[in-house]
Amino acid sequence: MGERFLKVYNPDEVVENLLDKFTTPTTIEEVPIEYAYGLYVAEDIYAKINVPPFRKSLVDGYAVRSSDVKGASSSNPSMLKIIGTVRIGDYPDEIFVKEGMTAYVPTGGVVPDGADAVVMCEETERHGDALFVFKGIAPSSNILDEGSEIKRDSLVLHKGERISERNIGLLNSVGIEIVRVLSPLKIGFFSTGNEITFAHPLPRGKIFDFNRITLRYLIEKDGFIATDYGIVRDEEDKITYTLRKALNENDIVLTTGGTSKGTSDFTVGIINALGKPGVLVHGLNVSPGKPTIFGVIDNKLVVGLSGNPQAVFMIYSTVIRKLLQRKLGVMIGAHAVFGKLLKQVNSRKGRVELVGGKLLTLNNENFIEPLLADSSSVSCIKDTDGYFKIPEDVEGLYEGDVVEFYLW
Amino acid sequence: MGERFLKVYNPDEVVENLLDKFTTPTTIEEVPIEYAYGLYVAEDIYAKINVPPFRKSLVDGYAVRSSDVKGASSSNPSMLKIIGTVRIGDYPDEIFVKEGMTAYVPTGGVVPDGADAVVMCEETERHGDALFVFKGIAPSSNILDEGSEIKRDSLVLHKGERISERNIGLLNSVGIEIVRVLSPLKIGFFSTGNEITFAHPLPRGKIFDFNRITLRYLIEKDGFIATDYGIVRDEEDKITYTLRKALNENDIVLTTGGTSKGTSDFTVGIINALGKPGVLVHGLNVSPGKPTIFGVIDNKLVVGLSGNPQAVFMIYSTVIRKLLQRKLGVMIGAHAVFGKLLKQVNSRKGRVELVGGKLLTLNNENFIEPLLADSSSVSCIKDTDGYFKIPEDVEGLYEGDVVEFYLW
Repeated sequence: MGERFLKVYNPDEVVENLLDKFTTPTTIEEVPIEYAYGLYVAEDIYAKINVPPFRKSLVDGYAVRSSDVKGASSSNPSMLKIIGTVRIGDYPDEIFVKEGMTAYVPTGGVVPDGADAVVMCEETERHGDALFVFKGIAPSSNILDEGSEIKRDSLVLHKGERISERNIGLLNSVGIEIVRVLSPLKIGFFSTGNEITFAHPLPRGKIFDFNRITLRYLIEKDGFIATDYGIVRDEEDKITYTLRKALNENDIVLTTGGTSKGTSDFTVGIINALGKPGVLVHGLNVSPGKPTIFGVIDNKLVVGLSGNPQAVFMIYSTVIRKLLQRKLGVMIGAHAVFGKLLKQVNSRKGRVELVGGKLLTLNNENFIEPLLADSSSVSCIKDTDGYFKIPEDVEGLYEGDVVEFYLW
Repeated sequence: MGERFLKVYNPDEVVENLLDKFTTPTTIEEVPIEYAYGLYVAEDIYAKINVPPFRKSLVDGYAVRSSDVKGASSSNPSMLKIIGTVRIGDYPDEIFVKEGMTAYVPTGGVVPDGADAVVMCEETERHGDALFVFKGIAPSSNILDEGSEIKRDSLVLHKGERISERNIGLLNSVGIEIVRVLSPLKIGFFSTGNEITFAHPLPRGKIFDFNRITLRYLIEKDGFIATDYGIVRDEEDKITYTLRKALNENDIVLTTGGTSKGTSDFTVGIINALGKPGVLVHGLNVSPGKPTIFGVIDNKLVVGLSGNPQAVFMIYSTVIRKLLQRKLGVMIGAHAVFGKLLKQVNSRKGRVELVGGKLLTLNNENFIEPLLADSSSVSCIKDTDGYFKIPEDVEGLYEGDVVEFYLW
């Protein structure tokens, strides 16, 4: 049996080259803000109102004309006539502060027209309708102007940003009721392989599946809709049937298993048989994940991931996520931090090594502990916080080398 | 009107002191693994099976006795009799590799009994039932032993760890069908204030709510059940009714608004009236969030957050999360990284300053850009990646100072 070598591609080039080879839906949905969490906004979003929406008092006090209390002091207080009380949540249409007059206004209340400053209660004394003010005050004091935090029509969220716990309150505060978001991408996936099972107890010769349940939550975490098509036996008609069904029902399909050059590897042939242009890339110069397949069938992307659990996690988290992020114009966003390697990592020249690691902090410095594992291990991702790359032209990294570490 | 000062407490001390003052349910649920994502495991979890569960071949090749091919070379090949083919997913009970015999085994297949190594196809030549092996091989070569990745009964997840996309595949792989998890904490919350509304268009004198929708997603992101009791007018009987209902239906209740020393501040009185011991802490030496209230009613924790959006976000993300993490013994976990401040930040001695910031990386170094904002702003959290603390005994930090930055 002769070895057939894979032609391997650099993952960054694969992302660039594939971008215009497939399509994703560009439909937009109008979603009430309370159901929009985790979705990606389809357009720039502008404030519908000023924040604050009125001149807001920053203190409990009295709204005055600053000219009325000019030069006031404890020995020479200004006396004003109290003409009303502003209640929080009410707009004081009935109150207009004319010369010599004042009105009570609580913290957060609307400063009534006519007044240009609010004197704190502590600097006043009230006797019936008369208010004595013991201190002068500059115009605008203790007032937050309408729109001073956010101006109506100013940009609050960029197209492609994701709605999160950090900005959903802001959207609500600026008057957004309905938000236009990208329809979530539908990603179908299945595992292939006669050895994989979900039967308990485990039949002899079988293994439990790592990949489907992992892919489900990786996909959902990114805000996409994950649909699981189960475990498919390594038989051409069964895989063909499932792949066709998944393509009909989804925008993108991921398969795991059946990508290496063994005897049960139908994936390439099946993708080529199902539609044009078929397989575009078979093999990445990356470890883990070398035998990854990228194909396009009738404008839909199909990715054949190897059955190796670590490769599934890494290739989804790096290549596929980046490809989708670029294609959709969204910010899925992971943090990168620089840290010093706690130990040496070897690598093979000519391939990009993706290495999981743990982020540790000590004495004002950030450290990365590489967590190496046999590439078939199901446990090696568990204790990682993220990963770093060793470029293809580097043979390894030394203890103390600084790496850019991408948090999951 | 005289000013009443708040007695203020250090937030870390508050966490320590409150820990034994309230209770949270300790009920455990048995959940199928496919519904367990995001939950916290209630006990250490051990592997139910060995991984791999059998001696697994790492290559496409022939299972042999290494002693049979000792000294084999291309000029002097060993000849073996092929007695069978292992199919992937099948257990080869019918194949036993005796002296002089061999069987085909694919990558991932079960190495049949009798054999102690697998020779790669590339080093053999097949003629009918005869196999010529051109190279000797050491015992155990190309075989992954049963249990060599994970031993049955070994610890795979610690009590209190959260089930995530990084470990759910592992749990499935080691044979976990049902996982014992902590019942998710139920947290009810509401906003108080006559000025807050959800009516569109915005009535004059009102503002839209930031806090409820933000709390919902902060709580849900931590894996708890969030129940929204809406906006409650600043009236004692309405707040009392809602707080009592929320306490009946939840394990913990959060309120926002009505915590400062103004005229509409019923919260302290209401908490004290509803049950013992009532308010335990009113005031943290922290900014934002100084007027936070911690109370306990019939063993349930009530936190009165100020209405300030930034304070709600910060106090939940720091003090409340830490308190719950300690109380439940779970790892909600955020990453901390060290970074250099890109600009000076002033602080007031005697209080802990919580400062939102952006993490930036450049030239192998991590930088933190502090994002300061008026404490009432609804937009200041949006562009932050996390926060850092300025301790109470420090008056400010300089550009270039290294801070420990906690990612959200």
